[in-house]
Amino acid sequence: MSVTQRPIALIVGAGDHLGSAIARRFAVEGFHIVATRRRGNLDSLVSDVQALGSEATPFYSDARDEEQVTTLINEVETELGPISVAVFNVGGNVQYSVTETTTQVYRKVWEMCALAGFLVGREVAKKMLLRNKGTIIFTGASASLRGNSGFSAFAGGKHALRALAQSMSRELGPKGIHIAHVIVDGLIENEATKQFLPDLFASKGKDGIIQPNDLAEVYWQLHSQPKTAWTFEQDVRPYAEQW
Amino acid sequence: MSVTQRPIALIVGAGDHLGSAIARRFAVEGFHIVATRRRGNLDSLVSDVQALGSEATPFYSDARDEEQVTTLINEVETELGPISVAVFNVGGNVQYSVTETTTQVYRKVWEMCALAGFLVGREVAKKMLLRNKGTIIFTGASASLRGNSGFSAFAGGKHALRALAQSMSRELGPKGIHIAHVIVDGLIENEATKQFLPDLFASKGKDGIIQPNDLAEVYWQLHSQPKTAWTFEQDVRPYAEQW
Amino acid sequence: MSVTQRPIALIVGAGDHLGSAIARRFAVEGFHIVATRRRGNLDSLVSDVQALGSEATPFYSDARDEEQVTTLINEVETELGPISVAVFNVGGNVQYSVTETTTQVYRKVWEMCALAGFLVGREVAKKMLLRNKGTIIFTGASASLRGNSGFSAFAGGKHALRALAQSMSRELGPKGIHIAHVIVDGLIENEATKQFLPDLFASKGKDGIIQPNDLAEVYWQLHSQPKTAWTFEQDVRPYAEQW
Amino acid sequence: MSVTQRPIALIVGAGDHLGSAIARRFAVEGFHIVATRRRGNLDSLVSDVQALGSEATPFYSDARDEEQVTTLINEVETELGPISVAVFNVGGNVQYSVTETTTQVYRKVWEMCALAGFLVGREVAKKMLLRNKGTIIFTGASASLRGNSGFSAFAGGKHALRALAQSMSRELGPKGIHIAHVIVDGLIENEATKQFLPDLFASKGKDGIIQPNDLAEVYWQLHSQPKTAWTFEQDVRPYAEQW
Repeated sequence: MSVTQRPIALIVGAGDHLGSAIARRFAVEGFHIVATRRRGNLDSLVSDVQALGSEATPFYSDARDEEQVTTLINEVETELGPISVAVFNVGGNVQYSVTETTTQVYRKVWEMCALAGFLVGREVAKKMLLRNKGTIIFTGASASLRGNSGFSAFAGGKHALRALAQSMSRELGPKGIHIAHVIVDGLIENEATKQFLPDLFASKGKDGIIQPNDLAEVYWQLHSQPKTAWTFEQDVRPYAEQW
Repeated sequence: MSVTQRPIALIVGAGDHLGSAIARRFAVEGFHIVATRRRGNLDSLVSDVQALGSEATPFYSDARDEEQVTTLINEVETELGPISVAVFNVGGNVQYSVTETTTQVYRKVWEMCALAGFLVGREVAKKMLLRNKGTIIFTGASASLRGNSGFSAFAGGKHALRALAQSMSRELGPKGIHIAHVIVDGLIENEATKQFLPDLFASKGKDGIIQPNDLAEVYWQLHSQPKTAWTFEQDVRPYAEQW
Repeated sequence: MSVTQRPIALIVGAGDHLGSAIARRFAVEGFHIVATRRRGNLDSLVSDVQALGSEATPFYSDARDEEQVTTLINEVETELGPISVAVFNVGGNVQYSVTETTTQVYRKVWEMCALAGFLVGREVAKKMLLRNKGTIIFTGASASLRGNSGFSAFAGGKHALRALAQSMSRELGPKGIHIAHVIVDGLIENEATKQFLPDLFASKGKDGIIQPNDLAEVYWQLHSQPKTAWTFEQDVRPYAEQW
Repeated sequence: MSVTQRPIALIVGAGDHLGSAIARRFAVEGFHIVATRRRGNLDSLVSDVQALGSEATPFYSDARDEEQVTTLINEVETELGPISVAVFNVGGNVQYSVTETTTQVYRKVWEMCALAGFLVGREVAKKMLLRNKGTIIFTGASASLRGNSGFSAFAGGKHALRALAQSMSRELGPKGIHIAHVIVDGLIENEATKQFLPDLFASKGKDGIIQPNDLAEVYWQLHSQPKTAWTFEQDVRPYAEQW
């Protein structure tokens, strides 16, 4: 790694669909992309970013681990430069009856949704507070707003993440840090899932599935807002979604 | 009036600040602006739109009056062309103790906030349903989400408007009409009010007042969203606002 | 009418089901019942109250009419005595597509749900503020919390009523007036409706329909709360209701 | 322990104030009280329950520990009898800036508020599902509904607990288990805290502090509701509380 002249976008949870689309959207604007995921492969994302004329640094890092998060963010800030925008996009959707939810599952979902969001949010905020500047965006879900049968664990994790985002917004907004929370209410286009659940995807019809690039635009817009008009929260769903 | 080749943006409640800024934002994109207000003057807005290279048609019309609203929308659709986007931006903020709120005030605030929004929303929806296409955006406020001491009337009107927007979104979204609700949580820059309340404005500091052009950007972004990723609701406030 | 030694409970919208059950519940506690409705008959309610050992004064009065409401409350306070608790229980549920909702319907639903609630709430509050004491309870519905397809008018009226209740609670609570809002989320037992919609009622099964006496208990409990522990809002639904 | 003929109320988190008051309220109704806390002393609560003519079994048990919770509930059900009502009343309020919140604190607050609630809720639900009967009540706070500066950890835990309660209500209500969530919005009378923060308590004035016995009444009322009229959620605050 070497210091970049580009603004830096950190995407924690740069999966193949939404996370990668957000990375590409910022790459188009000339951002240096720092993309992390725990497993999987970041090669094609790095290539995509380069094809768009920018640069990407991949990290294989577990966002639930305090030391890994602290090290990651220190390294980025020290060796690449200041983080302009951080996106926390780690998922963790599971569905079990409450009596069939193991303690391990309940804990793991919270660690992925909320603890990881806290670690990334806190460590990035420490850096941004040195400059009174920066954007942190958290990815939420319908379960952020409402519990439901089968969603004790997932709704718990997502509710806790929203409480974190709201607390950070009220605390750090006046210090110049823009905190936002995007409520994703619908299926995101995903080739792997589509092969697994073809009927569900087919039932949604044309334009009935969220296209990652369309959703990524919202993240870019949020980061672009001037200080007199910041959004904390917005929901996004396909036009025909029942809600 | 004569048929225009431009897409049409209808701004109901095109006041000097937010309404005019929204009109200019769509004018920049080449929209023909239909701007209405009940009182005041639309001359400078028409000039602004022309200076931006587009055209504007002013109407002096009361959005609380069914016949005036129906006539307005029929005339626009018949003589100018199909409405692509309609913005309902009529205000009505008052503050009185509940025991000092007259029936006339309670009714008038509801007529401005909710009845007018219903008339405009319903009549525009009828036209857009012929094409299964179009955007309707309603302007809300903090009082849309929460009642408070002194706000029985205003919160009532704004809550009712939000219920309308949410009902329309669930009903008309699947038919291709994008309904959105913007929650404006903060003072909007306004020379007249600033002269009246200089201390309040001064207390907000730099970037502490919503700039109409910054907020207008949100309306443009909402209209621009592709069908796979529509936002129903987003809040907007200055970075340092207490909420 | 002549001055009573009993505490007075005013039930506005004393229909055959919930309203009458609330009246009977307070009658059991020795309250003098003032029961109003616009149409229908109050004879059997008066008999029921007497059979429970208390007294009732019936009024045929339109809660949407300022003069009627003012006269009613002045008369009660002057001729019977101070109102201890007022319950606003006027309904107004309708279901129409937004494009098929007439202006007359939209206005009338608001007048029943919100304007009438405002008039009763304001006039009763004026009296209670003289004593810094009293309870006002408003009946809400699922539509108080959420708009939905077909509910532009009803959700608008109920949202406005909730905004009123919340504003009054924040304003009048510190002055000793207990304001509460009950969210009724489910069908209420109703012989007339059951004959009209037998399948709907049958589908709910045993205990699947709200029994008016069970719901009325909540109103009594709210009024009985000591000042250190007041509830503003609670929801009530049958055990098997989907929500 | 030996089998009791009394209905059983399990109070997890039977602290000196609210938890003990709830225990006494159910004791008055003849319930056998099973009271647990992690630290502190249950002797005086046991005496109080006996003085009220009932019996109590104390447990010193950590509700965050799966094995302890499972053992506790199995023992109660096997040796004493079926649990009629369970109250989860474990606290965990802390206040730190997000950047000064340690990972240990963030995790511990979640374990106290949410993980413990999940373990108790799940294990009790397993037993109650055998009988399709029972009540589980969770204690929430203002932070259950809204994040705020300094409350990243506490609001996260309380939001997650509310998501659990809501998910369980939607899942288990139709199976005959009554789930409720009480939002406590205000200071609870507490001699220890009062000595530590005399000015805060004094500022609240007469009736400005929640009296534990008054709040405990709400728990009893919730448990007493018949199946046609169940409340999921209600807020409770002193009459003069700002909210």
